[in-house]
Amino acid sequence: MQENREKYTELANRIYDLDGEVYECVGSNLGRTFTGGRERTVRTLSMLMYTKPDGHLLRSELALISNMARTIKNKEEKSRLMEKYNQILKEIEELPDVFGKEDIVDAERVALNNLVLKREKISENDHLVICISRTQGSAGNDIGFELADDLKINYYDVEIFDQVMKRLEAEKGEVSDKENFTDFNKYGKKSPESLKTKLREFNRYHGLPKQDAVFFNMSDLICSLARTEDCIIMGRCADAILRNNHIPHVSLFISAPFGVRVQHIMAVRNMGLRQAARFLKKMDRQHRRYYEFYTGEKWGKPENYDLCINSANYGIKETIDVIKRLLKQ
Amino acid sequence: MQENREKYTELANRIYDLDGEVYECVGSNLGRTFTGGRERTVRTLSMLMYTKPDGHLLRSELALISNMARTIKNKEEKSRLMEKYNQILKEIEELPDVFGKEDIVDAERVALNNLVLKREKISENDHLVICISRTQGSAGNDIGFELADDLKINYYDVEIFDQVMKRLEAEKGEVSDKENFTDFNKYGKKSPESLKTKLREFNRYHGLPKQDAVFFNMSDLICSLARTEDCIIMGRCADAILRNNHIPHVSLFISAPFGVRVQHIMAVRNMGLRQAARFLKKMDRQHRRYYEFYTGEKWGKPENYDLCINSANYGIKETIDVIKRLLKQ
Repeated sequence: MQENREKYTELANRIYDLDGEVYECVGSNLGRTFTGGRERTVRTLSMLMYTKPDGHLLRSELALISNMARTIKNKEEKSRLMEKYNQILKEIEELPDVFGKEDIVDAERVALNNLVLKREKISENDHLVICISRTQGSAGNDIGFELADDLKINYYDVEIFDQVMKRLEAEKGEVSDKENFTDFNKYGKKSPESLKTKLREFNRYHGLPKQDAVFFNMSDLICSLARTEDCIIMGRCADAILRNNHIPHVSLFISAPFGVRVQHIMAVRNMGLRQAARFLKKMDRQHRRYYEFYTGEKWGKPENYDLCINSANYGIKETIDVIKRLLKQ
Repeated sequence: MQENREKYTELANRIYDLDGEVYECVGSNLGRTFTGGRERTVRTLSMLMYTKPDGHLLRSELALISNMARTIKNKEEKSRLMEKYNQILKEIEELPDVFGKEDIVDAERVALNNLVLKREKISENDHLVICISRTQGSAGNDIGFELADDLKINYYDVEIFDQVMKRLEAEKGEVSDKENFTDFNKYGKKSPESLKTKLREFNRYHGLPKQDAVFFNMSDLICSLARTEDCIIMGRCADAILRNNHIPHVSLFISAPFGVRVQHIMAVRNMGLRQAARFLKKMDRQHRRYYEFYTGEKWGKPENYDLCINSANYGIKETIDVIKRLLKQ
């Protein structure tokens, strides 16, 4: 800190001068940011450059000056002063203990987040996998299906998984009957060998309650899909499963206000208002329980996803467009 | 429905045939989607085209076929069959009662959402206003400040608003003293007249508890900023205030998992683990109470914002980049 003191004082003086210059350019009936004298102001400003808890106050002072400077009518003056401002800001950002210096990072998640454009691919198994959680009635499945079609990648929803799981169950114990695997094989598995592995793993969970066995098999299936192809996976706690298995993906949560979802369900399922509201509450409860049971996390909390989108504030087409803009390199 | 019955049957037959063709191209050890006979399958498929509650099952069947078709090795065959698929999908989308037909829209919010690119500007007062709500420790302010700097637009946070409000309070009763207004004037107000209006409005709330008077004055200030300039507004329930006043804006919520926020606070504020955790819990409680008191809405629920971002899954720079990608035309 000691060796930086001169730098602090110099910067503080330049900020004070800039404020004065901006004040003159803007015109006389507009105020200046610093109404105290130079000495006191410089002391306060330089303190803010190394006092951590209150460092953000310096940011606010700087914002005040630049907000002002942007209103200068004379273009030359404006760009001259904005340049001074930018230079000061740049030098402040290089100080060791100043505001904005501490990044916020869940390093593991950043490394696996498909939306982080500057991320390095972790392996050749690094595919674009979009996990979409959604509330019933938010048109999440419509959005997922159309997005998959747009991106020309595969789409997996609960019905598709259910078909696969049912076939898997039916095949249990008939490991030698290759002909019967074919229906499963198309879901991204490349060879009969890996399919055998999968069935062996299935047998491994023997003894668990059936719903847990189904969940674990589903987890394996989701992981192997995400390792072998670009795809969109609807629900099934896929986000938590892939996170736990360190497989790159994007996790989105799509929802909409309850009232809008009720209207949507009434239209889509030919229901009355009450019936739709009751149906939605029940589905939300089931969703919440399922997610919380298998992940231990709260369903629908923004900090559990990379991004949450309120589909009602865009409509289906624009929601798809928002997601595509996010993916753009 | 009656007049569409022929169309349904025709489409169902084409879907059945496509499934067969895809099956042949993919190779013999991969299964087909429809294992029943033609007649039964066609009946089921055509029913799905007008049976609303289960219409989404048709979507899953189609997804199964296209997921398969995408694995075809022979490029010519693949593109021929994908074209057939796309044509079928297009014709299905034109049917009156099929899945994906019902949009999900909060029409008023869509009309005012700056992120909806195809939105028509509602007036010349239609500015790019970004309201950022955030949890303490999610680096939300760092993100807001840098984003404003990037976009070259003004930045308003609680410290700036507090300064303005304090000056406003000080001026109360001294309406004729123009010199004293100058400090307020720079916050986007264009003339002394509108400033007088503002102070008259301030006096209007005389008799309310002080914090409510402050809130109402803040609301007015936020509305007049949003009507006159592009800007970023941190917190202050600005999203709810602008929505209630039908002023276009984007509402973002930035958060991060509690554990990551604790680490961030420890670094930024030189706190120990316990102190940081206690501080965050207190701040979250205050935030929640403030927001819920003035808006009647739950703080931090995804359906109350256009978009929620988990800053820890990106880091500061990439979070800013994500927001900029969303804004891009």
